[in-house]
Amino acid sequence: MTATPRIVIVGGGFAGLWATRALAREAVGITLIDRANHHLFQPLLYQVATAGLSAPDIAAPLRHILRDQRNVRVLLGEVPGVDLAARTVRLADGTTLPYDQLLVASGATHAYFGHDHWAAHAPGLKTLDDALLIRRRVLLAFERAEAAADEAGREAWLHFAVVGGGPTGVELAGTLAEIARHTLRQEFRRIDPRRARVRLIEAGPAPLASFPPALQAKTRRQLERLGVDVVCGAPVADITAEGYRLGETFVPCRTVLWAAGVAASPLGRLLAAQSGVECDRAGRVKVRPDLSLPGHPEVFVAGDLAAVTQPDGRPVPGVAPAAKQMGRHVAAAMRARLRGAASAPFVYRDYGNLATIGRMAAVVDLRGLQFSGLPAWWFWLAAHVFFLIGFRNRLAVLMNWAWAYWTYQRHARIVIGGRAGAPPEEDQASSRSGAR
Amino acid sequence: MTATPRIVIVGGGFAGLWATRALAREAVGITLIDRANHHLFQPLLYQVATAGLSAPDIAAPLRHILRDQRNVRVLLGEVPGVDLAARTVRLADGTTLPYDQLLVASGATHAYFGHDHWAAHAPGLKTLDDALLIRRRVLLAFERAEAAADEAGREAWLHFAVVGGGPTGVELAGTLAEIARHTLRQEFRRIDPRRARVRLIEAGPAPLASFPPALQAKTRRQLERLGVDVVCGAPVADITAEGYRLGETFVPCRTVLWAAGVAASPLGRLLAAQSGVECDRAGRVKVRPDLSLPGHPEVFVAGDLAAVTQPDGRPVPGVAPAAKQMGRHVAAAMRARLRGAASAPFVYRDYGNLATIGRMAAVVDLRGLQFSGLPAWWFWLAAHVFFLIGFRNRLAVLMNWAWAYWTYQRHARIVIGGRAGAPPEEDQASSRSGAR
Repeated sequence: MTATPRIVIVGGGFAGLWATRALAREAVGITLIDRANHHLFQPLLYQVATAGLSAPDIAAPLRHILRDQRNVRVLLGEVPGVDLAARTVRLADGTTLPYDQLLVASGATHAYFGHDHWAAHAPGLKTLDDALLIRRRVLLAFERAEAAADEAGREAWLHFAVVGGGPTGVELAGTLAEIARHTLRQEFRRIDPRRARVRLIEAGPAPLASFPPALQAKTRRQLERLGVDVVCGAPVADITAEGYRLGETFVPCRTVLWAAGVAASPLGRLLAAQSGVECDRAGRVKVRPDLSLPGHPEVFVAGDLAAVTQPDGRPVPGVAPAAKQMGRHVAAAMRARLRGAASAPFVYRDYGNLATIGRMAAVVDLRGLQFSGLPAWWFWLAAHVFFLIGFRNRLAVLMNWAWAYWTYQRHARIVIGGRAGAPPEEDQASSRSGAR
Repeated sequence: MTATPRIVIVGGGFAGLWATRALAREAVGITLIDRANHHLFQPLLYQVATAGLSAPDIAAPLRHILRDQRNVRVLLGEVPGVDLAARTVRLADGTTLPYDQLLVASGATHAYFGHDHWAAHAPGLKTLDDALLIRRRVLLAFERAEAAADEAGREAWLHFAVVGGGPTGVELAGTLAEIARHTLRQEFRRIDPRRARVRLIEAGPAPLASFPPALQAKTRRQLERLGVDVVCGAPVADITAEGYRLGETFVPCRTVLWAAGVAASPLGRLLAAQSGVECDRAGRVKVRPDLSLPGHPEVFVAGDLAAVTQPDGRPVPGVAPAAKQMGRHVAAAMRARLRGAASAPFVYRDYGNLATIGRMAAVVDLRGLQFSGLPAWWFWLAAHVFFLIGFRNRLAVLMNWAWAYWTYQRHARIVIGGRAGAPPEEDQASSRSGAR
């Protein structure tokens, strides 16, 4: 009798969790490691950042999701290293875990392209902590504007800039405009929140670069109708605590949000260095067609950490459906390997592309069938609620949305963390230490 | 024509908010200052600490509550000082606000009776940030136990001690026992969460000192039935990161929660020093029968900051109904003063006393009518949901409870803040810096 094969999965995001679940019936011992205790439904993270949903609405404990799958052990921990030769994973507490097969799916974080000092002034959005930090900054900006001593200070606190016109940037800008125009109406005495300027800044020619040009134009029009000032073809040259520079112009602005760059988890370069494999510019590992690491058929990379090219030469996009498909594919490849069979190449099934813009505005591109506006928004809503993990969460999210839709209210407008009532200088400092 | 009278109210808790609302029809200019942007429904704070409710479920933005009351301006800020002679309130950002009448209702915080170094190891529960810190510590303790290398380490992480047998301590201990016995069942592979020891430590002879002896005995029995080890007549002699000392015995324990002591906000002693008025041992201001500061009929103190004695010599308790009554009474006294009339003494109407213990267990004392167990729990639930501010919150809380009741699940089991996956030493350090 041989020992139970040991499978280690690093990362409980879409790729790691879907791989774990697809191995439920195998006679293996799986260890799933994540640095958070929860699986996060990232597509709705912007709703937590903009106070529409609570953090627990879009996250479920990994242990709870997997409680009935007896062949998996969930471990809360950070993985600073992997030893490909010894076939072990190293944990931050110093222990090592041996594996027979390994999946590394530790995802991506936001990147500042060599401008790491911008991180303190322009938080990005990848984790629940990021979302709560952005929520804090946005809500406090209106408070600071109300308390500002002069008009110039007031204007800088009422200017919100979102850098990066991808789906996250578009969602954030559209929702910030809704908050300023509708949610906060009537609540201030010195400022009129409707006077807030929300600007979306995109270095390329249009927002939503991955969509067809017609939908890009519609996105721009829908954003403008919501009150967003869309600036394209203009890269941001500098970001400080006081504002940002566009070309030669410095614009006073106390709230800059970063949605421009993504870099793969450092584990990617670490694996590449040990195996002689290449990474792409964002640090993603160039894997074999079956998602295994070249030269290491027992190691797989999936999700945002993997650089995979489709047969037509286009890269597989970094979206949730692709990560889930990769996770399931890795599970199949691991099963094949356990049986001594060959593994098939990964084929990405592209069901379409959709992005929400704001209240009743979205764009949908279903392999040729394109639509936008209210129908696209309903489609987006249905798809996202349907895919949200866990029945209870789905119901709570639907209720919160129905409520927000009718009342324009956002129930999670609560500032937690830091000292909200402290003067703005102290607050910026405390937020800074909270950023990663 | 005289200028509009300026009323400043410090604190948006039950006393401050109820005073503000009771002045809605007056021709005055009210400034309500709070260090948080929200009114907090403190009676349910323990539910956030034990992952049953999200932070936004029990808090509502003060601006939103008061949006239609046009005579009030809400200001987010800290108040480090009051100048009684100049009749101004000083804000942390250096500005000062003049007042014609002032209400100081800045409440209380937890106190360690001269053992301030215990604060890092035994967090108390007064704000949403406190609740999220406790939630983090409790959820991470089970994770650390699962990852512990030896049996002694495991036991220390699976021992939860609550110091203080008042209502908060009883609620926390009862709910922790439920989490260990029911919520986390099946989710771990190395530990059995049901083996966790939850201990309630009370220095006095019985839990719930403010209740009649028969209900104290019932409380003890109900706690024990839920699995709580109740230790009375034993003050804690020391608390460290590794455990606590009871008499001569040191008990290894990685999670100690503090529910033992309350101290009034420092503004109390500050007012007392300027007016020559006395404070009681907890730092509460001994006010006149109409709740004004002796020698300063234009200044009032209410809520947990005021030491008020009933005609029968008993102190008015520090509970939400008393704070609301005081707030309304101060509004009436301010109105009387505006009209040049005399203000009446405050009379506390005691409608009874109730405390929840845990799943289907509570005690109720309605001026003679006493009951406990399931009927008391339903009564407690109805009263708390009824008084929870804001229709939407009420509905969300009811739904979350109904869900938790049927499934034993707690939807907010999400660790945010700090680095959850970091080794325990780092995590304790990061929690410490997060404590106040």
